[in-house]
Amino acid sequence: MHVSDFRWKRGMSAAELSEALAGIGFQSSEMGRAADNIVKMKKSGAKIFLTFTSNMVTSGLRGFFAQLIELGMADIIVTTAGGIEEDIMKALGEKFSIGKFHPDDTELYEQGINRVGNIYIRNESYAVFEEFMNRTIEQLYIRQKRWAASEFLNELGKLLKDEHSILYQAAKKSVPVFCPAITDGALGFHLFMFQQEHHDFVIDVVKDFEIITNSTTHDDKKGIIALGGGVSKHFAIFTSMLNGGMDYAVYMTTSSETSGSASGATTDEAKSWGKIKDECDAVTVIGDVTITFPVAMASALEALSKEAVI
Amino acid sequence: MHVSDFRWKRGMSAAELSEALAGIGFQSSEMGRAADNIVKMKKSGAKIFLTFTSNMVTSGLRGFFAQLIELGMADIIVTTAGGIEEDIMKALGEKFSIGKFHPDDTELYEQGINRVGNIYIRNESYAVFEEFMNRTIEQLYIRQKRWAASEFLNELGKLLKDEHSILYQAAKKSVPVFCPAITDGALGFHLFMFQQEHHDFVIDVVKDFEIITNSTTHDDKKGIIALGGGVSKHFAIFTSMLNGGMDYAVYMTTSSETSGSASGATTDEAKSWGKIKDECDAVTVIGDVTITFPVAMASALEALSKEAVI
Amino acid sequence: MHVSDFRWKRGMSAAELSEALAGIGFQSSEMGRAADNIVKMKKSGAKIFLTFTSNMVTSGLRGFFAQLIELGMADIIVTTAGGIEEDIMKALGEKFSIGKFHPDDTELYEQGINRVGNIYIRNESYAVFEEFMNRTIEQLYIRQKRWAASEFLNELGKLLKDEHSILYQAAKKSVPVFCPAITDGALGFHLFMFQQEHHDFVIDVVKDFEIITNSTTHDDKKGIIALGGGVSKHFAIFTSMLNGGMDYAVYMTTSSETSGSASGATTDEAKSWGKIKDECDAVTVIGDVTITFPVAMASALEALSKEAVI
Amino acid sequence: MHVSDFRWKRGMSAAELSEALAGIGFQSSEMGRAADNIVKMKKSGAKIFLTFTSNMVTSGLRGFFAQLIELGMADIIVTTAGGIEEDIMKALGEKFSIGKFHPDDTELYEQGINRVGNIYIRNESYAVFEEFMNRTIEQLYIRQKRWAASEFLNELGKLLKDEHSILYQAAKKSVPVFCPAITDGALGFHLFMFQQEHHDFVIDVVKDFEIITNSTTHDDKKGIIALGGGVSKHFAIFTSMLNGGMDYAVYMTTSSETSGSASGATTDEAKSWGKIKDECDAVTVIGDVTITFPVAMASALEALSKEAVI
Repeated sequence: MHVSDFRWKRGMSAAELSEALAGIGFQSSEMGRAADNIVKMKKSGAKIFLTFTSNMVTSGLRGFFAQLIELGMADIIVTTAGGIEEDIMKALGEKFSIGKFHPDDTELYEQGINRVGNIYIRNESYAVFEEFMNRTIEQLYIRQKRWAASEFLNELGKLLKDEHSILYQAAKKSVPVFCPAITDGALGFHLFMFQQEHHDFVIDVVKDFEIITNSTTHDDKKGIIALGGGVSKHFAIFTSMLNGGMDYAVYMTTSSETSGSASGATTDEAKSWGKIKDECDAVTVIGDVTITFPVAMASALEALSKEAVI
Repeated sequence: MHVSDFRWKRGMSAAELSEALAGIGFQSSEMGRAADNIVKMKKSGAKIFLTFTSNMVTSGLRGFFAQLIELGMADIIVTTAGGIEEDIMKALGEKFSIGKFHPDDTELYEQGINRVGNIYIRNESYAVFEEFMNRTIEQLYIRQKRWAASEFLNELGKLLKDEHSILYQAAKKSVPVFCPAITDGALGFHLFMFQQEHHDFVIDVVKDFEIITNSTTHDDKKGIIALGGGVSKHFAIFTSMLNGGMDYAVYMTTSSETSGSASGATTDEAKSWGKIKDECDAVTVIGDVTITFPVAMASALEALSKEAVI
Repeated sequence: MHVSDFRWKRGMSAAELSEALAGIGFQSSEMGRAADNIVKMKKSGAKIFLTFTSNMVTSGLRGFFAQLIELGMADIIVTTAGGIEEDIMKALGEKFSIGKFHPDDTELYEQGINRVGNIYIRNESYAVFEEFMNRTIEQLYIRQKRWAASEFLNELGKLLKDEHSILYQAAKKSVPVFCPAITDGALGFHLFMFQQEHHDFVIDVVKDFEIITNSTTHDDKKGIIALGGGVSKHFAIFTSMLNGGMDYAVYMTTSSETSGSASGATTDEAKSWGKIKDECDAVTVIGDVTITFPVAMASALEALSKEAVI
Repeated sequence: MHVSDFRWKRGMSAAELSEALAGIGFQSSEMGRAADNIVKMKKSGAKIFLTFTSNMVTSGLRGFFAQLIELGMADIIVTTAGGIEEDIMKALGEKFSIGKFHPDDTELYEQGINRVGNIYIRNESYAVFEEFMNRTIEQLYIRQKRWAASEFLNELGKLLKDEHSILYQAAKKSVPVFCPAITDGALGFHLFMFQQEHHDFVIDVVKDFEIITNSTTHDDKKGIIALGGGVSKHFAIFTSMLNGGMDYAVYMTTSSETSGSASGATTDEAKSWGKIKDECDAVTVIGDVTITFPVAMASALEALSKEAVI
């Protein structure tokens, strides 16, 4: 494929923009390959793992994840505690704002504002979340003492009334949401406070290992879209390995492979483990996921919609 | 400004995509601010410096740079020798291809292929460039012995017949092209070979300091769009400082500020030098320029075209 | 403090090297500040959280972490499942080897070699780990059905016979080891297999929230050395916030703050949350932790040993 | 080679530290390989190109570069204008200080302080430089009207009286210093001011292409230590390609290969060009050069000194 000169056209569509980007080279063409890979993944009928770190939910990608679940583009979700918390806050009406990367952080603290990159979360949002959790854990405990984390999250989703919510759409579409480090955040704090008074309350994380492993079979085609790294990415690729590994893989990250971290591990490295198959269609796109993912995914959705796949 | 949930819409336009991206947060919102900054820069009547490293010209951004000059979006260009060489190769009909980031490089070498990231350039393209330069230097020497580098490049542009060429459009629009390290590449080799036989042939780089400084006045509004780092970025911001510094600045780079390099230097750092004014509208976007620049610039062009500025 | 010229001296000591590095500027001087911060942290009597991602245990930092526990330089450990697994493999005599970052990964897979960056782990090491776990889970289950993850890891440590082992030294010194995503890896698989046959076996991750919170008091001075990011870093700073936040903080990472990820979050961002105190002595060092951490820590240890603190 | 556990030892030497680092893995072991490569490079009798960006000279590596020239560890230097300027300022007694990465830059500007990462340069230092240049250009012009840039820099070196100065040691040891973008900075400004009054004054950059090409032969063994990227790195590897390419190469950088930039280009990419030979001993170390270079080089010097090579 030749490098082709990018040219702007008045009133161009997002699809035309994406197509033009794919011919530029460097990460633009990798992003184009990622879009193609997602199209093939979906058309193959693969079960799709969508994994993301909590900061993606802090950002406006959150409503897009919900939309993707609604469109049938994600069959299994893996994320971290912060992602669950912030999806709920937003579903309860809380708004986050966009600020600066280098503000006076002491001043923010005094104003009750918590910073994530250039996004600000008010203390009140945590209070709203707390109120919801206190009420909800109690209700669920009455029904059952021991909960697999994903079953617990499914119940939370049923209680939310927001079509932009990941948990809401996941519950509606029976898409399991896994959170292998479910106690790592405010969620953990509320679970701990409740367990103090109700010792027989148990969050069963081991059970989730069974549920995620059974969510696909060895014979299923399997694909992954891993946004960022950490445990959300690793849990999906590790458990899928037990069913023969991924057939399609798109990794999008800012991390580099040079430090040996799971976050920066490439699709090549995954081949050495059998986490993705040798013949797997695999792409790694380096860059801020708030840009690379919506652009690539919008392009894939357009193509799939043209072929009436979605 | 609130974080807003990104939502895909069937058949959405590039402008709608950009607007939706701007509300996501992290680098997406910085990219949105960059687009706004470019719109304001242009509407203010600022003289616009567009600087880029040679790899951008290796990529398909090259034709976009030419288009921007044509549209009046760039008044002064600064780049490196490779950027000049590859613009000429492409203007002479050479095609580069998109390959892999981790091929067998020894094998490529044996096939006469030179790699830049995931873009491949054939040895033949250098031969075509050489033939052009040998012919051209001779002609220019006959007219004049001592050339400011930018005047020399202006003459090259006049000889090319490609509307997608940076040098062609720059010559046509009388936009000066500066190349402070003009000998750093094949171009340097050909100049050296010619000078061996014609000792009175001189490329005057000091003269270019005068020309770039005189290309704006203290009273002009001035803006910069710096893509990548290195001498192309530094030469523009250093020389503009002599005329009071930039009023608008957009830096797009993958480099980080943590090493103190000029490539990673932020718009904040530039304020300490007076390279950009304190009250300057300044944005730094971190990410691969092959993605961030066309997306932001397409958005800015759309807005400017709606207001009939371009 | 002035920048000072680095000069090599024949036979210089590591302490002299570190001192010379601290005067260079950029990340060298941040690394020097990190060493000073660690010295102050220890001398203040602070409880020290040491957190690291699993790849650090894959690397030769593993024996150093064990030594630090032995020296009393770490009071609370937080890591991920892979870190536990690989510490055990090494304690059982397995050797990892140093290879290449870009080998033929399909070939490695066929040879039964799993790659982490440039480090190779043989399948046999996982078999050795499996054999150990199968035996051990059974034994622990007989004693108790419900285990806090950290109590479970403490028992594993008692069974190992390797002074270079993190778990061994942690058990010996009563340093709790937390693993908020304990099922994310082979460890999770073995726990799952066992739970299949023994439904009343429970790993209680919520309990660990209580244990880590109680491992320090509001009145304790608290310090953190966070190597890499992810849940290990986040769990420590989040839970310490409940006791008033850190008084000393050293973050070492390759991640950048520009994406809003927890891994790249700086000590400044942590101030907005109250995760570290406003007046906290805080340093962020950007670079590969396999270099920055041992160099900074060796320097701190030398200083502490001179003052007979360790 | 096996991963080996790093262990601190009271009073350990820098050489012991380096040896221990080399067994850790990830970038530590690459840094160890870089040290070995430098030892082999020197022992082979190779002509050594040492290239660095100007921020390295801003930092305290500047005196180390001078020492390396003195020790015979660098035969050809390539750098940028800022590197020349700051070496001279320091040779004239100016001191730079270490500050913060995120200060109030507007305040710094008002105080007459210019920031490079976390290093501060006072306006006065530029005034001292200006005074020196004004005096010196005049003197050199009287002797000769047309100067190759490297010959001009050689004369500057002869006028400095500082053993820690790069230019001083280079002049003393007849090591040529190349600066392919010599006008990109204050140096360019002073040359321009002088040329305004003396039109026949010429800085001949094309001549330097000849001089650097003739500084080695096709038969010489050739090695490069490239610190950071940009034109300093590219000019050395491009011109050496004309003599058959490098036999040994060590690249140290924070840039990543993913954007296709020259700064991030790896030693593998260079093989596709013939810039370094296929069988070349080549290492790329990712990380802040203020840490990786002095640690690796100190280790190499120790080894060379033990074998009485230096």
